[in-house]
Amino acid sequence: MQKVTVLGAGSWGTALSIVLADHNHEVRLWTHRKEQAEEINNKRQNERYLKNITIPENIIAYDDMKASLEDTDVLVFVVPTKAVREVANQVKECLNHQVTLIHAAKGIEPDSLKRVSEMLVEELPEHLYRDIVVLSGPSHAEEVSLRQPTTVTVSSKNIEEAEKAQDLFMNEKFRVYTNPDIVGVEIGGALKNIIALGAGISDGLGYGDNAKAALITRGLAEITRLGVKMGANPLTFAGLTGIGDLIVTCTSQHSRNWRAGNMLGKGNSLNEVLDQMGMVVEGVRTTKAAYQLSLEYQVDMPITHGLYKVLFEQKQPKDVVDQLMTRVKRHEMEDLSSMLGDSKTL
Amino acid sequence: MQKVTVLGAGSWGTALSIVLADHNHEVRLWTHRKEQAEEINNKRQNERYLKNITIPENIIAYDDMKASLEDTDVLVFVVPTKAVREVANQVKECLNHQVTLIHAAKGIEPDSLKRVSEMLVEELPEHLYRDIVVLSGPSHAEEVSLRQPTTVTVSSKNIEEAEKAQDLFMNEKFRVYTNPDIVGVEIGGALKNIIALGAGISDGLGYGDNAKAALITRGLAEITRLGVKMGANPLTFAGLTGIGDLIVTCTSQHSRNWRAGNMLGKGNSLNEVLDQMGMVVEGVRTTKAAYQLSLEYQVDMPITHGLYKVLFEQKQPKDVVDQLMTRVKRHEMEDLSSMLGDSKTL
Repeated sequence: MQKVTVLGAGSWGTALSIVLADHNHEVRLWTHRKEQAEEINNKRQNERYLKNITIPENIIAYDDMKASLEDTDVLVFVVPTKAVREVANQVKECLNHQVTLIHAAKGIEPDSLKRVSEMLVEELPEHLYRDIVVLSGPSHAEEVSLRQPTTVTVSSKNIEEAEKAQDLFMNEKFRVYTNPDIVGVEIGGALKNIIALGAGISDGLGYGDNAKAALITRGLAEITRLGVKMGANPLTFAGLTGIGDLIVTCTSQHSRNWRAGNMLGKGNSLNEVLDQMGMVVEGVRTTKAAYQLSLEYQVDMPITHGLYKVLFEQKQPKDVVDQLMTRVKRHEMEDLSSMLGDSKTL
Repeated sequence: MQKVTVLGAGSWGTALSIVLADHNHEVRLWTHRKEQAEEINNKRQNERYLKNITIPENIIAYDDMKASLEDTDVLVFVVPTKAVREVANQVKECLNHQVTLIHAAKGIEPDSLKRVSEMLVEELPEHLYRDIVVLSGPSHAEEVSLRQPTTVTVSSKNIEEAEKAQDLFMNEKFRVYTNPDIVGVEIGGALKNIIALGAGISDGLGYGDNAKAALITRGLAEITRLGVKMGANPLTFAGLTGIGDLIVTCTSQHSRNWRAGNMLGKGNSLNEVLDQMGMVVEGVRTTKAAYQLSLEYQVDMPITHGLYKVLFEQKQPKDVVDQLMTRVKRHEMEDLSSMLGDSKTL
């Protein structure tokens, strides 16, 4: 049994807390909202984020971060990407000992173009943790909280830290694999939200499964192209944190990025969509970051550029999707070979 | 304008005929059932296979094969895998000139372990065609017949023949790409039906999208492993005829292989399922063939083996799926690296 502090009581932070609680760890679930902590502790519910799920008794919610961190063994960051630096700064103020550091946030910071693990390295003093572990994979929070079979990957430069995280979470229903390619795991997890927005738009426009499958396939190709240029292993994108997560995010109505895209496809403006969602839609910021990355690394990313035009340049979704479907390339291998970069061939 | 004979008036043969007719080709759609030919010619309907779709006037149905082949420029085989040899033999009897030969059947023959193009080479005299072209990709017939955006791949050893097929079918809504890897295209198209059966079983058992995404991801890995051993390019499996087709077949209720799996997962026997479907379920025969291929090529294919036990050894679907979810491997890269075979690394 270990003491684990989960930072962030959204859908995913709460679901991961449930996995840890089922494993009999002592779970402290931190949220900055007092009323949410009280709802969890008193009603055993987190109604807004996980409807109709009973929160196990061995999860204690805190709104006092210092108390949540006292004597803890493991820290799990599950906050939206845009809150990572701020929360890390709060941690720095009240953590005095070394912990195992895991994060399960999916996004890239616009402008700085940092992955979440890189932001944490910048914000947290070295003596507070060993090597960061990333947890990612095809995992709707709702299903995890219902103990439905789920597989995820943990990744770290340090295999021992990854295996610690694996042992912490692994059970019969929640299978955890390791992968040493932290760049590939983080890029796949972040960029799938862009393709999910696109898939939602395609569905919102009334296009079918054939169109969506084409979009997902080409989405995987452009994510892989970028990842490889950034130093990732192309095989990672063929795994759980690549195509696996892409499938689950693009084909399920659980996905808030898909839902946001769907509303865009039906004619709503970005502001209307964000107002109605009431939750963070990571894909919107990630689209901006990935657009910038594609320019920085000079990688052809037509879906990302199309989405960027819809979100930030008021282009019509239908025009952009139709343009993506009718690009001039005639040979599939031109597209696929470029997944491995210019200098590598099989 | 060309004269094109489509052999097989099931859902996919009819949908491809509609694409050709929209392109103003003269389309002869052959079926061995006289009443079906009459329904198409007189009522402009093919009710059993494509509900509520009006068949264009420039499609003429034939039950007389000789008449359908007279003076034709192109032959498109769209019959179930188990009928390929028999129909090819009929063609041999009444075709006297050279044609462009395309097939769009997805399967592997059990015992002989031949791909469809190999069966056609065995049955048809060389002088009747140049190089065979395979057409495959993520394409529900229903959506194609509704002119929804769709992408497919054509593959041939002979790029000129592939480009002929591309020009024959390509339009704004039906995009056709070429890929020279005919082995990879045929293996991907055939084996995705196995994974679709598995995805249907998972859904039938009440498991969620997380479990299904894991199954599809690992399914892609085992298809790729086999394909590479058989001489395919691993990148083909990352494209439209690989992951693209896998996604569309596993996540849509249009797919009859998914539906068959779903009924199995809900407790029906294989015989009950096949009786109720009333259409060919390619995945059942393909599971047998792929099982045999995995032994022949000594490739680890746990999903295929699990399905084989459900279909042919009366194992309980739940036991098999649970076993697949709880396999002992802990490192994702062990699984993924083997996709490229033993001797290749990136």
